[in-house]
Amino acid sequence: MKPRIAIDAMGGDEGVRVMIAGAALARHRHPDFSFILVGDQAKIERALDDHPGLRAASEITHVEGVVKGDEKPTQAIRKAKTTSMGLAVEAVKSGAASAAVSSGNTGARMAMSKIALRTIPGIDRPALAALLPTIEDNDLVMLDLGANTQADARNLVEFAVMGAAYSRILYGYERPRVKLLNIGTEDLKGTEELRDASAALHRAEHLPLEFLGFTEADKISRGEADVIVSDGFSGNVALKAVEGAARFVTDLLRDAFSSSIRSKIGFLISRPATELLKHHLDPNNHNGGVFLGLNGVVVKSHGSADAKGVANAVAVAARLVEEALIDRISENLSDIAAVLPHHGKAA
Amino acid sequence: MKPRIAIDAMGGDEGVRVMIAGAALARHRHPDFSFILVGDQAKIERALDDHPGLRAASEITHVEGVVKGDEKPTQAIRKAKTTSMGLAVEAVKSGAASAAVSSGNTGARMAMSKIALRTIPGIDRPALAALLPTIEDNDLVMLDLGANTQADARNLVEFAVMGAAYSRILYGYERPRVKLLNIGTEDLKGTEELRDASAALHRAEHLPLEFLGFTEADKISRGEADVIVSDGFSGNVALKAVEGAARFVTDLLRDAFSSSIRSKIGFLISRPATELLKHHLDPNNHNGGVFLGLNGVVVKSHGSADAKGVANAVAVAARLVEEALIDRISENLSDIAAVLPHHGKAA
Repeated sequence: MKPRIAIDAMGGDEGVRVMIAGAALARHRHPDFSFILVGDQAKIERALDDHPGLRAASEITHVEGVVKGDEKPTQAIRKAKTTSMGLAVEAVKSGAASAAVSSGNTGARMAMSKIALRTIPGIDRPALAALLPTIEDNDLVMLDLGANTQADARNLVEFAVMGAAYSRILYGYERPRVKLLNIGTEDLKGTEELRDASAALHRAEHLPLEFLGFTEADKISRGEADVIVSDGFSGNVALKAVEGAARFVTDLLRDAFSSSIRSKIGFLISRPATELLKHHLDPNNHNGGVFLGLNGVVVKSHGSADAKGVANAVAVAARLVEEALIDRISENLSDIAAVLPHHGKAA
Repeated sequence: MKPRIAIDAMGGDEGVRVMIAGAALARHRHPDFSFILVGDQAKIERALDDHPGLRAASEITHVEGVVKGDEKPTQAIRKAKTTSMGLAVEAVKSGAASAAVSSGNTGARMAMSKIALRTIPGIDRPALAALLPTIEDNDLVMLDLGANTQADARNLVEFAVMGAAYSRILYGYERPRVKLLNIGTEDLKGTEELRDASAALHRAEHLPLEFLGFTEADKISRGEADVIVSDGFSGNVALKAVEGAARFVTDLLRDAFSSSIRSKIGFLISRPATELLKHHLDPNNHNGGVFLGLNGVVVKSHGSADAKGVANAVAVAARLVEEALIDRISENLSDIAAVLPHHGKAA
């Protein structure tokens, strides 16, 4: 299936221009992609003037409404048919598009996507997953990053299966290494939900993943796991703490380097080294948060992403379509039921 | 009251030598401090050979048992009278010492301290607090960092009051700025416990703190709060994520700087700048985690702390004694009751 991606062209801090430039870059890299550009037609047309290749591969769905950054999910869901975000998701629901990419208000997109696409039968709750850099070559899949504030053992096991499916698609591992985020690595640590999920995953040797027990938040970047699973509150805290700390250190560094003429010279000489660091930490290189567990692929591009970041999010969306993410998750659902005695009772 | 500090001399990755060197350094800086050194007498005597000043100000409590790093709290509490950690805490209970400093097994120390010292009447649960660096001059007080895995609204309000008392003692602020850690800043975000705690703290204008609502984990180092309050699970995740990310960035930096001769030269020239960074991130400069809410001062020194780190932990302990931390917390307890209608029912 050739990916046809619905782009919410009105999202992102920089608006239409960056979203269109990102789609154009993705199209340039993957000439078989086509697009539905959703948003204000006049603005989109104007942005397309710089990208004739993209124009030839796109149709425009005109809509004037946008979901604002501070809009509550309960308000946003009433605008499913009248906003660019809503219509991008609707395009996936109707089958007109194979995936949607949007940036901006995460809560609103989550709510809209859940209502329009519903969860895969057998999956209790969707989760927000993203890629984080590690000291190893491959990125880490981390979830849930805030789709839910709480998670029971069943949810955590489902997140593990969904995250492993994502990691397999990205890197081709047969059995991605999965860990559960906890506040210690001993069996007795943490909440009952975590201990139950750990026991279930230890029993689940037939699942296409290798469960390696608990990990702690200081190991996130160590490359010791391919997937780290947590409830949405802790995952969101961990992700933001990592972002904040990385910025803190780079801020300190910049201050330190500009504190004397000597260190300024040192900085200039070592510029190639610090550029490497910047590249590694640049969120654009890891862009593409995904709602896993829905009947459709919806990818979140970071609000501050540039064209390269948007293109990466589009590529992630296309990859998940081509590799049949949803089928892969569904295949494992009966295997989950086997390790969770009460699984399915709420399904 | 002149501080008399009980030192668990057997703790820490480096053992007796570093703990004694740290106590000696603290004694050198604060000649009015005296010490009870708890542990293997022969080893302590040997370590004291280098520190005659400390020897003159100390007595030794001999005990051979130690609490191991992987020992479960339920095992450790049976060793209150037969281990260095247990007897250091007992010295506070009996009044022989005004505070205890220990490193190593946090769960064991927490359990021993709770049983020996009990919580301040009116405080439901103690919390583990520590100091974190920020881009501003003063460190941030963060709690709970893992003493409890869950916290209700009442606990969170008590943590806020205890953290504010700690911050007042350290920096002299009349009304420290307090925020609650959440996964968004809007009123509706997060768990019911957080929303209830926020409502209570907003009502609590008479408390000696300024409540500024929710914050997110990427703002921890921004210096926008003097105290950040969370449940113990999220706080532990946030703290470790920050530690891990800081190490990740400095590792990347080291790799980057050693990747070419050019960048090596750049690094040497800018050494003073990177030393400043190292100083700012060195946990030894922020050492001294405190269990707040107990009838006694017990300070945790980081397992990997050097002598300077141990000395800082001792100084924190002494400061909390001199400034009557426990009285200050107790003073605010009736004020807490006023904002939490059901407060006290479980006390």
